[in-house]
Amino acid sequence: MTAPQNLSSEGALARLAAVIESRKAANGGDPEKSYVAKLLHKGPDAFLKKIGEEACEVVMAAKDVDHGSDPSKLLYEIADLWFHTMIALSHYGLDPAQVVAELERREGTSGLEEKARRKA
Amino acid sequence: MTAPQNLSSEGALARLAAVIESRKAANGGDPEKSYVAKLLHKGPDAFLKKIGEEACEVVMAAKDVDHGSDPSKLLYEIADLWFHTMIALSHYGLDPAQVVAELERREGTSGLEEKARRKA
Amino acid sequence: MTAPQNLSSEGALARLAAVIESRKAANGGDPEKSYVAKLLHKGPDAFLKKIGEEACEVVMAAKDVDHGSDPSKLLYEIADLWFHTMIALSHYGLDPAQVVAELERREGTSGLEEKARRKA
Amino acid sequence: MTAPQNLSSEGALARLAAVIESRKAANGGDPEKSYVAKLLHKGPDAFLKKIGEEACEVVMAAKDVDHGSDPSKLLYEIADLWFHTMIALSHYGLDPAQVVAELERREGTSGLEEKARRKA
Repeated sequence: MTAPQNLSSEGALARLAAVIESRKAANGGDPEKSYVAKLLHKGPDAFLKKIGEEACEVVMAAKDVDHGSDPSKLLYEIADLWFHTMIALSHYGLDPAQVVAELERREGTSGLEEKARRKA
Repeated sequence: MTAPQNLSSEGALARLAAVIESRKAANGGDPEKSYVAKLLHKGPDAFLKKIGEEACEVVMAAKDVDHGSDPSKLLYEIADLWFHTMIALSHYGLDPAQVVAELERREGTSGLEEKARRKA
Repeated sequence: MTAPQNLSSEGALARLAAVIESRKAANGGDPEKSYVAKLLHKGPDAFLKKIGEEACEVVMAAKDVDHGSDPSKLLYEIADLWFHTMIALSHYGLDPAQVVAELERREGTSGLEEKARRKA
Repeated sequence: MTAPQNLSSEGALARLAAVIESRKAANGGDPEKSYVAKLLHKGPDAFLKKIGEEACEVVMAAKDVDHGSDPSKLLYEIADLWFHTMIALSHYGLDPAQVVAELERREGTSGLEEKARRKA
């Protein structure tokens, strides 16, 4: 019997977080062999500027979809952006489950409107 | 009996996607009452520039953590960034489960190193 | 006799820097009346996130030009981006003439290739 | 007799624009030898994502100044950002003098407040 889709998808975030964690130098990650280990080794500025760059690539891909491109590239770029934010989460001792919990906290009508009021 | 943590967390992404979906004009979303409906109503440039702005706020919050601030602000900003990418996903007919599936596809040693090779 | 084009153009950067300087609270700038005074009053995070947002708008406008729009919107967005970097320059005690001098330092074949080597 | 500072500084923007122009393939620019020629050869997405990345580096450098670093790094990053916007200007047939003219148009009390009203 296969796991339900939702369970397996969420598992992916947790498993990816664990893989990133294993790339830290303290856990034996090797900057010569792993992209994540290399970014973590270089320090925050290296992956933070990737977040800026990837956000920009999301915007460019979205504009291309506006003008007729297939959305698959956009999906890929959003995955890249989430991926690099997960490296930041790992570096700062945070976890994607906490991001999801924060989104959950805002979820529902009241949560989203709370944000609207906060920004107003 | 309570749901397992993973299941309930994943549910949050799907539920938030459903709430965003319900904010589309076609589904009765009201730009006067809902922040999400307002962004969707304004069109892509409105939420795309929020993605750029929120990525920038993630970077600023991370730098503050580097200099001694509490990481909770960073967590909040990453949630904001994911949140606005979820509005883009909804607009372009995509789904956070597809982002997670793309991350899952890359997961594991081979997946992450594949990325390293791609970028090299 | 009219001033040569170059001289008058450069004067514009210096004059704009002087106007921004005059919007500082210490020089009588009023956050209620002036956009620049308001940003300076709010502090760095306010204008820094505008830099992120304006960079994103430059990218969006450029993509629109790629797809047939008139370049005038792009010109306007680049002016917006330079404008907000000039607010940052003022806040940090810097000057657009120093930015131009840094660009001048890199100018010419050797300067640009120096950059190429630095990034390689 | 040396040229006045303003004239020479403005000259730098025009000269740098001319150097960038000379890096276009049509003008003999060689992507193997020149960083600018390489970016122009790769096409808009290559230099547009550099604009996103450089804006992010400006923000990071500014945050470091907030926390005690020397502002010279910030100056350097703002020069990098202007430099990459100048590559975009060249690609799209625009000119830094037009950016300066647009800033000049907004200059002075009325110009800056016009912007405030526009954003309000």
